[in-house]
Amino acid sequence: MRPYDVIKKKRDGGRLTKAEVNFFVKGCVRGTVPDYQTTAFLMAVYFRGMDEGETLSLTMAMRDSGCTLDLSCIPGVKVDKHSTGGVGDKVSLVLAPLAASAGLTVPMIAGRGLGHTGGTLDKLSSIPGFSVDISLDRFTEILQNTGAAIIGQTSEVAPADRRLYALRDVTATVESIPLIAASIMSKKLAEGTDALVLDVKAGCGAFMKTYKDACLLADTLVSIGRGAGKKMAALVTDMDQPTGLAVGNALEVKEAVAALKGEGPADLMDLTLELGVHMLRLAGVEDDPKKARAKLARLIKSGAAFKKFCEMVTAQGGDAGFVRDTLKLPVARETFTVKSERTGFVQHIDAEAVGISAMLLGAGRKKAEDDIDPAVGIILSRKVGDKVRKGQALAVMHVNDRRRFNDAEGLLREAFEIGPTASEKRPLVYKVIG
Amino acid sequence: MRPYDVIKKKRDGGRLTKAEVNFFVKGCVRGTVPDYQTTAFLMAVYFRGMDEGETLSLTMAMRDSGCTLDLSCIPGVKVDKHSTGGVGDKVSLVLAPLAASAGLTVPMIAGRGLGHTGGTLDKLSSIPGFSVDISLDRFTEILQNTGAAIIGQTSEVAPADRRLYALRDVTATVESIPLIAASIMSKKLAEGTDALVLDVKAGCGAFMKTYKDACLLADTLVSIGRGAGKKMAALVTDMDQPTGLAVGNALEVKEAVAALKGEGPADLMDLTLELGVHMLRLAGVEDDPKKARAKLARLIKSGAAFKKFCEMVTAQGGDAGFVRDTLKLPVARETFTVKSERTGFVQHIDAEAVGISAMLLGAGRKKAEDDIDPAVGIILSRKVGDKVRKGQALAVMHVNDRRRFNDAEGLLREAFEIGPTASEKRPLVYKVIG
Repeated sequence: MRPYDVIKKKRDGGRLTKAEVNFFVKGCVRGTVPDYQTTAFLMAVYFRGMDEGETLSLTMAMRDSGCTLDLSCIPGVKVDKHSTGGVGDKVSLVLAPLAASAGLTVPMIAGRGLGHTGGTLDKLSSIPGFSVDISLDRFTEILQNTGAAIIGQTSEVAPADRRLYALRDVTATVESIPLIAASIMSKKLAEGTDALVLDVKAGCGAFMKTYKDACLLADTLVSIGRGAGKKMAALVTDMDQPTGLAVGNALEVKEAVAALKGEGPADLMDLTLELGVHMLRLAGVEDDPKKARAKLARLIKSGAAFKKFCEMVTAQGGDAGFVRDTLKLPVARETFTVKSERTGFVQHIDAEAVGISAMLLGAGRKKAEDDIDPAVGIILSRKVGDKVRKGQALAVMHVNDRRRFNDAEGLLREAFEIGPTASEKRPLVYKVIG
Repeated sequence: MRPYDVIKKKRDGGRLTKAEVNFFVKGCVRGTVPDYQTTAFLMAVYFRGMDEGETLSLTMAMRDSGCTLDLSCIPGVKVDKHSTGGVGDKVSLVLAPLAASAGLTVPMIAGRGLGHTGGTLDKLSSIPGFSVDISLDRFTEILQNTGAAIIGQTSEVAPADRRLYALRDVTATVESIPLIAASIMSKKLAEGTDALVLDVKAGCGAFMKTYKDACLLADTLVSIGRGAGKKMAALVTDMDQPTGLAVGNALEVKEAVAALKGEGPADLMDLTLELGVHMLRLAGVEDDPKKARAKLARLIKSGAAFKKFCEMVTAQGGDAGFVRDTLKLPVARETFTVKSERTGFVQHIDAEAVGISAMLLGAGRKKAEDDIDPAVGIILSRKVGDKVRKGQALAVMHVNDRRRFNDAEGLLREAFEIGPTASEKRPLVYKVIG
């Protein structure tokens, strides 16, 4: 078998066998397939796509390029939740401990933020001492003791994904649904979970801008997971405005803590509970959605969910004092209120623009190697459907570094579309698969 | 400008500016654009194509990556002929001295054979002493003195083409008309010719298997040449059977010498004269095709063309004694006659199969680094339309190395299709452009 033949077959629209995909992925990791052949292959995949079987083969080959966790030592069902990324999406911080407090084991390998999207790891890292660089052995141990842990992708997990992603990133081959799906699932299949609930975001702040693409990605992800023998569910959810009100790392931790106490913004609470219901269902804990939702609500009300979060923070080296009293978390030097220039109703909040605005303030990364500032970010004062009078606040910016303030402020101001009448509220969950 | 943006623009079907193409080609040669970005770009071009302007920009950027010859020191019009490659195509060996004997200057930079196609340089190299590795200065000098020279692509000419071709060859991005056209024309535009006649082959033995693709390539080549200010003509000609009877290096030199003396096979004579007519026309020597053809025929009959060939051979270090007496050229140890198993008419001769058969005997290269044997090859005894009786010869194989004889013999035998009635003769020239 030669790399050339695999490239040519894909170029001509052929269906690759498992052996061909394995050969290519292994060669790419070992260096026997040079990068210049890999990128030609990736571009051919971009144009020709991959069917269900090829995408599963690709995912499995990428998963098998590294370690896979065996969590069978932990009794009960292991269930993870994964989001395709958005703005203000701090659901994992709330849901992991919430689901663990319901008796599930939640082995979560999460990512860092890039561009306009935030990353779960960055948010957690704003808690002093909290470590996301944890070995797989220690990860297993924490899961055994507390039921939830959130760590970063170690170099042991799916090295093929890192290599392929680095090449895709510089060759305009990121935006390919089979490649995106294989990248996500290769890591998720390595983390030893039995079931996975996916939150596939659709809208201006999401990677998938259209409902159609989000559904296609969701279908592909579910198909891969099931092909690998996992219980799967996917929710296609709204990312046409940020989730909750806070955008920025410490600000989002504060909001997550509020949510764990039952005091989070309505959409954040709703999305968290909705995803949790599917986790409980897949785990076989509670089939009835109403009962599952009530159970989760009780765990929040009783303080069990928040207690579990504190346990997880402590287990990962964080100082739980900072989440018990979130006023101790990093705070920006100054705040600036963006005020509405007209009276009306918020029609739309461009989540991507809000995300980039927060990034410009230092809350996110333009390039993977950039540093972030945990304290800075944005708190929305209004969401879609809310009434606003001229001069009233649309959002509050939390600022440390004024260098890119003007750009950030302009973007944030323009992100809000104000109209004369209240627009119809968009549903939070567009579609449930599985 | 970033390579990423150029790749993405092409991926999305955008039209690249001259500056973008220049940036990419320069970066590729200098190494500032890594190979893995170049190959992703090439695959995007494979899928999206390039319009006339982009293809011209690409060609000019590739040409300008190296030296370009200035032949203005030589009076009169410089006219070259270029063939896209076929089986048994020794036209250049006849046409270069023939056109030079008519007073034209013919600066020919030719290629080596690969796969089933032969190369002009390999054929000439079967003449002892003949050198094709000649500096551009010496090339100019020979052109001044004899009017014709045939050399190989030196490292000074279009280095971007060599780099891009090497990458295309291993990434299944060879078969792209704009890339093929830019590759051909970047070298042709560097050789200092004023006019160019193209012989674009169509059929089973050609790079372009279909008439449609050959026409598309011919149009693209003509458009590039005119865009660069050259006088252009292109003939789309038949390569559904080999040209002439000889396939193999010394065997083809013998046939070329015969043709220079007016004794070549009819199709070879015809194709050579037809192409020569267009060279005379573009050079402004003779507009009337009949008169031009008669002039060329006279130059053959008078011995002027053959004399010019001997001059050219001598100028390039070859021993003209070997072309004056072609019996002195390398001869294979044994010959083997492939006989017809039935009586009928030759319907078709699969030129590609004949070419591969000759390659297996050692006349060609499977890989660029393979050695070739000048003596071996095939002489066809019958051509399409000829009658053959059972037991009569179809072809004679000239063999030195028996190791791959059986494969070669089987291929050659199957290349002949014999039917009960004489099939209609295909035209030699399908179409003339310009």
